[in-house]
Amino acid sequence: MVKTLLEAFNTAEYPVVGHGKRNVQVLKDTFDHLDGEIDSDIYGTGTVIEDFQTKIAAYLGKPSAVFFPSGTMAQQIALRLWCEEKGSRKVAYHPLCHLEIHEQDGLKELHHIEPVLLSDKDRLITLDDVKSMEDGIACLLLELPQREIGGQLPAFEELEAIAAYCRARDIRLHLDGARLYEILPYYGKTAAEVCSLFDSVYVSFYKGIGGIAGAILAGGEEFTKQSKIWKRRHGGDLISLYPYILNADQAFDERLPKMEQYYRSAVELAGLYNSGIEGVTTRPLVPVSNMFHVHAAFPKETFETILIAVYEETGIGLTGNVRDAGDGASYYEVSLGDRYPAIPKDRLKQAFELLHEKVKQTAK
Amino acid sequence: MVKTLLEAFNTAEYPVVGHGKRNVQVLKDTFDHLDGEIDSDIYGTGTVIEDFQTKIAAYLGKPSAVFFPSGTMAQQIALRLWCEEKGSRKVAYHPLCHLEIHEQDGLKELHHIEPVLLSDKDRLITLDDVKSMEDGIACLLLELPQREIGGQLPAFEELEAIAAYCRARDIRLHLDGARLYEILPYYGKTAAEVCSLFDSVYVSFYKGIGGIAGAILAGGEEFTKQSKIWKRRHGGDLISLYPYILNADQAFDERLPKMEQYYRSAVELAGLYNSGIEGVTTRPLVPVSNMFHVHAAFPKETFETILIAVYEETGIGLTGNVRDAGDGASYYEVSLGDRYPAIPKDRLKQAFELLHEKVKQTAK
Repeated sequence: MVKTLLEAFNTAEYPVVGHGKRNVQVLKDTFDHLDGEIDSDIYGTGTVIEDFQTKIAAYLGKPSAVFFPSGTMAQQIALRLWCEEKGSRKVAYHPLCHLEIHEQDGLKELHHIEPVLLSDKDRLITLDDVKSMEDGIACLLLELPQREIGGQLPAFEELEAIAAYCRARDIRLHLDGARLYEILPYYGKTAAEVCSLFDSVYVSFYKGIGGIAGAILAGGEEFTKQSKIWKRRHGGDLISLYPYILNADQAFDERLPKMEQYYRSAVELAGLYNSGIEGVTTRPLVPVSNMFHVHAAFPKETFETILIAVYEETGIGLTGNVRDAGDGASYYEVSLGDRYPAIPKDRLKQAFELLHEKVKQTAK
Repeated sequence: MVKTLLEAFNTAEYPVVGHGKRNVQVLKDTFDHLDGEIDSDIYGTGTVIEDFQTKIAAYLGKPSAVFFPSGTMAQQIALRLWCEEKGSRKVAYHPLCHLEIHEQDGLKELHHIEPVLLSDKDRLITLDDVKSMEDGIACLLLELPQREIGGQLPAFEELEAIAAYCRARDIRLHLDGARLYEILPYYGKTAAEVCSLFDSVYVSFYKGIGGIAGAILAGGEEFTKQSKIWKRRHGGDLISLYPYILNADQAFDERLPKMEQYYRSAVELAGLYNSGIEGVTTRPLVPVSNMFHVHAAFPKETFETILIAVYEETGIGLTGNVRDAGDGASYYEVSLGDRYPAIPKDRLKQAFELLHEKVKQTAK
């Protein structure tokens, strides 16, 4: 039986991307070393949840923070609160914002918020886009990095200019910081320095941090207090969130210091993709975080066949998931993590030589 | 320093109610014995979540089931779906329904559903209440047992009559079965027999079952398929729910056979409360599940002082939480579980003798 790309990736000797398998061992590694006498959080109260919220609030430089089971829940609530404050139903965000394409329109269906889409979907939101926004926008959401276009970032100065513009016009600025930690090495800023430009911030614990699940929403005291009411309304105020919290806390301490390494890995790996393989290129050309997209000028099925052959001959697994980009093109997302440093460089080089070769053969 | 009631309960030699402490050990006990190689569920897919959903659907006698992080989320969604089907915004439920008093009005704020409150808050919904409902009700929610009035149940025949009435009028019937397992011994029915009267059913895994958190919503294929879309909208479609699922699965197998025991414990303990202690009585007088309420004709603070003294002198902890019932009265909820059989009967008897004595002294 022919392997699927995902099977070939999962059984490759050296999967290149990610931290490791998403399996029960992740949880066991956290809890094997924890004292069983630690009390559960109870409906958002208790030391386990309160200490973690305080820790992350301090890290983000915000007065207060609330742990949520998901970013989907946290961000809809953030936008709802800013809309309530302004007495408006309008928010602005990128056309490929998570809320627009991955949440089954929860923002519209549950909160009746009308998003205004800024910029083209193939590029970042600019200061000019923001200046041209219609009146009555309660909140502008910026995602750093902009994941769906390969993880791109505006210059920090442009971000500061956007923040100043919004502040002067009473437009709240919310940060989708699902990958905030991952961009700090490139910006050369602390999380608090970046977050100081924003009124509210969401961060995730299962991307670069590699936890099981969970999110934090941070902002002012009144904002987070109100967010807890909405968390209850959404059904996110679980009796016990500690399985996620204690794991996130441990993963945060373990992986935060490695963000520079993940970023450097991405730059190095993107260099290998951009070494003259016909029709293959990365976006951005030089990554600004631990992620980038690989784009190919040939169809998904062709790319998959080539990749499977490369994995099987070299033991190097580059991705488990190629997507159709339309017009006979394809692409995939790459996020670097704990696995990359363990890949023998000569094996990796060999894999890219073979990729080069096979793409050339296919193009003939 | 004087102990609070909760402290006195938590440090009592023999806490009488519940299964045990809600601490990290609950999770460790589940995962210590599980293989680390078990793959995480991914956004609602994967063996871990699908197998459990299939298992519980079969147990409830429904075609399909979906795991949710919380009952709050599951039930709002169930009612929303039935409202969509009918093209109505009206549902009917008890005045002390969980959705009415414990969810910060999520049903109204997120779904704009208008509940019609049936019956007085001090009694069960009857067939007559149902017959007197206004037109246009999309769904009637019944909670079995009715928790906030001590866990009372209608006769099964009345339930059947209500179901028949609703079916004949295209009113959907939804079961808040947070404590469904706990009532099966009294009804002498299987879960599937009870659920056959309902179009949709929610069950919980952290009450009688004693799991960490989580819920199942069960019903027809199309209903549960639609519920997954709303689960994503609510922010409940987490990348990984396995910490709850694997624990719930184990707790379900372990505790389901003990529901008869928990029920018998409640009947026995209620008998001790109803042994002539002045101003103290249980509701219902004879429990029909593992739960009941203890009502006292004196204020919360008085009751707390008496209870703390009883715990300290006898080592028996009866409750950690007394609530104000208004008009100088007070009450608390009792749920029996794994702890009860281990209590030495003579110590328990001694505690009730002392309770009797101290209440008498206070009344003077």
